[in-house]
Amino acid sequence: MEHNHTLTVELGDRSYPIFIGSGLLSQPELLCRYVKGGTALIVSNTTIAPLYIEQIKTNLDSQNIQHDCVILEDGEQFKTLEAVQTIITTLLEKKHNRQTTLIALGGGVVGDITGFAASVYQRGVNFIQIPTTTLSQVDSSVGGKTGVNHILGKNMIGAFHQPQCVIADISTLSTLPNREFSAGLAEIIKYGLIHDAKFFKWLEQNISKLMARDSDIIAQAILVSCQTKANIVSIDERESGIRAILNLGHTFGHAIEATMGYGNWLHGEAVAAGMVMAVDLSCRQQWIDNSLKQRTIDLLKNANLPVTSPTNMTVDQYMSAMSIDKKVINGTIQFILLKGLGEAIVTSDYNPDFLKATLTNS
Amino acid sequence: MEHNHTLTVELGDRSYPIFIGSGLLSQPELLCRYVKGGTALIVSNTTIAPLYIEQIKTNLDSQNIQHDCVILEDGEQFKTLEAVQTIITTLLEKKHNRQTTLIALGGGVVGDITGFAASVYQRGVNFIQIPTTTLSQVDSSVGGKTGVNHILGKNMIGAFHQPQCVIADISTLSTLPNREFSAGLAEIIKYGLIHDAKFFKWLEQNISKLMARDSDIIAQAILVSCQTKANIVSIDERESGIRAILNLGHTFGHAIEATMGYGNWLHGEAVAAGMVMAVDLSCRQQWIDNSLKQRTIDLLKNANLPVTSPTNMTVDQYMSAMSIDKKVINGTIQFILLKGLGEAIVTSDYNPDFLKATLTNS
Repeated sequence: MEHNHTLTVELGDRSYPIFIGSGLLSQPELLCRYVKGGTALIVSNTTIAPLYIEQIKTNLDSQNIQHDCVILEDGEQFKTLEAVQTIITTLLEKKHNRQTTLIALGGGVVGDITGFAASVYQRGVNFIQIPTTTLSQVDSSVGGKTGVNHILGKNMIGAFHQPQCVIADISTLSTLPNREFSAGLAEIIKYGLIHDAKFFKWLEQNISKLMARDSDIIAQAILVSCQTKANIVSIDERESGIRAILNLGHTFGHAIEATMGYGNWLHGEAVAAGMVMAVDLSCRQQWIDNSLKQRTIDLLKNANLPVTSPTNMTVDQYMSAMSIDKKVINGTIQFILLKGLGEAIVTSDYNPDFLKATLTNS
Repeated sequence: MEHNHTLTVELGDRSYPIFIGSGLLSQPELLCRYVKGGTALIVSNTTIAPLYIEQIKTNLDSQNIQHDCVILEDGEQFKTLEAVQTIITTLLEKKHNRQTTLIALGGGVVGDITGFAASVYQRGVNFIQIPTTTLSQVDSSVGGKTGVNHILGKNMIGAFHQPQCVIADISTLSTLPNREFSAGLAEIIKYGLIHDAKFFKWLEQNISKLMARDSDIIAQAILVSCQTKANIVSIDERESGIRAILNLGHTFGHAIEATMGYGNWLHGEAVAAGMVMAVDLSCRQQWIDNSLKQRTIDLLKNANLPVTSPTNMTVDQYMSAMSIDKKVINGTIQFILLKGLGEAIVTSDYNPDFLKATLTNS
């Protein structure tokens, strides 16, 4: 299989390409073509910057693009309004104008913070996503959701702001710790569950090659995932409908992340446990049978992901955290549940007793 | 003349009405019609809340709309990201969901902060503007520019986010101190200078009635101003072109506000002095003659507004503050200048020596 692919997220005058391949960071013109104003600010974190920032600077230098950088602390707990303030202070100190481009170099946290900073600096400047984790390559860098956490809720402060392009260099995954690599697989498995039964089966067949970091298989998994997300986002950019199915497992997962403290559970880990809960609730509703639940658990386990929620979380903790979820309408929590493999729905029409049973795993 | 008027800002699916009239706050249905989700958060300040917040609460109660409120400190120096954080904390503590509506009750500062909080809370919720100052009724509440200041620059953090409606009750102006009433007149005079020679002449003829707070004349001045702004915003919502002319005097004015410390010069006062500078530079360019400069100065003086810039501000201070203006392109500051009465242009094509002469008033 060829490693290099280009997809387009079709959004009219906000359309943009996603480049997927090996060694893309060593191609200066790929990046520089999307930096229009002659200046750029690279935002990265203390883990990723030492690995790749020099390459990015060299690329920008080769086209005489002036650049500055901001290096953030690494971790979900630093995804705050203060980080956005830090970026904006640097932009102003270095006198970046409305033509500047922000470059997010890192995982989902860096991408979300940087995209949000770009959306609010001078009421909106351009930005480019260079995701360096499995999770951000298949999820957060595509689709224009940006934002930061509030102590009372994840992603509660944000904006829809589409990047100029996404450069997903799968070579960067070689430095990714196993735990983070697995966290990204949770979102990949999600695309199979919500939208693509064939892809789910392919993942079941190829999970050991994925875990062995076979680069052909990784590229294929990322390509299919981005294609699915791009298609859904093109139909429903602002999540007024179908886009919500991308949140399978996320309502439960966000509650786990918030309650356990940001950074203790990785986002993908919480989503994995949350997807099992969503599948479990779908099962109790008799919308899917037990064998699909078991296949989901098996696949997640093979991806080295948690399949049970934290034992010390109470129903009240879940309900309290979930009651401020963005999908609450008129006091009722909406969930993404399954009607079959590859068939997700957004619904508030579930039996509350079944929900309680799912939350207590009884 | 009839006091009550409705204008529409035509922006496709983001179109909204502006209601202008006396006693509009005593009409519960006018407000409640635009609160869709059954909950609202009123944001006001310590000066305005004691005067009008009970009326707003009564209106919401009459339609069983649940409401909470946030009362901010009064002043441009409190237009910060921290104020936005305060609003969002209350929204989360009181469990407001994505269907909630924020209501901005106050002047431009309250409107800008509240609109920005609405634009970022859960990636965007509805809001309503209830401007209670002349300045906010004719300027900041119309057009969807929202945002907060950074210590290094005014309005540097923000978003375009249109309200559901604007309710400009001119009765509220009766409690406005003279200094703030005059500050609003600066923006009203601006509309004449940039776009409407006839309106400028009408203002020259009616300035004493305006200063005497004749309510018919005030209503007429606000109506024409809002109509002009609505027309310009409809053509160029995101300020990629003509909308920039609304910033006549603002590049100089923002530099004065930032350098003198937010809150020491009122926004309208700084704009008045800034407009004289813009007119002076246009004169030096020989685009307009001296008589128009004198008429501008006379009208602003009659509105009790400053017509000279702070004596202690240096050219370096101006250039430093203006270099981070949002209208800087490739290092060159763009100004809004006049080619005639009612004819503004956006240009970087001016003689730098003339600019220096304007800045030093020499």
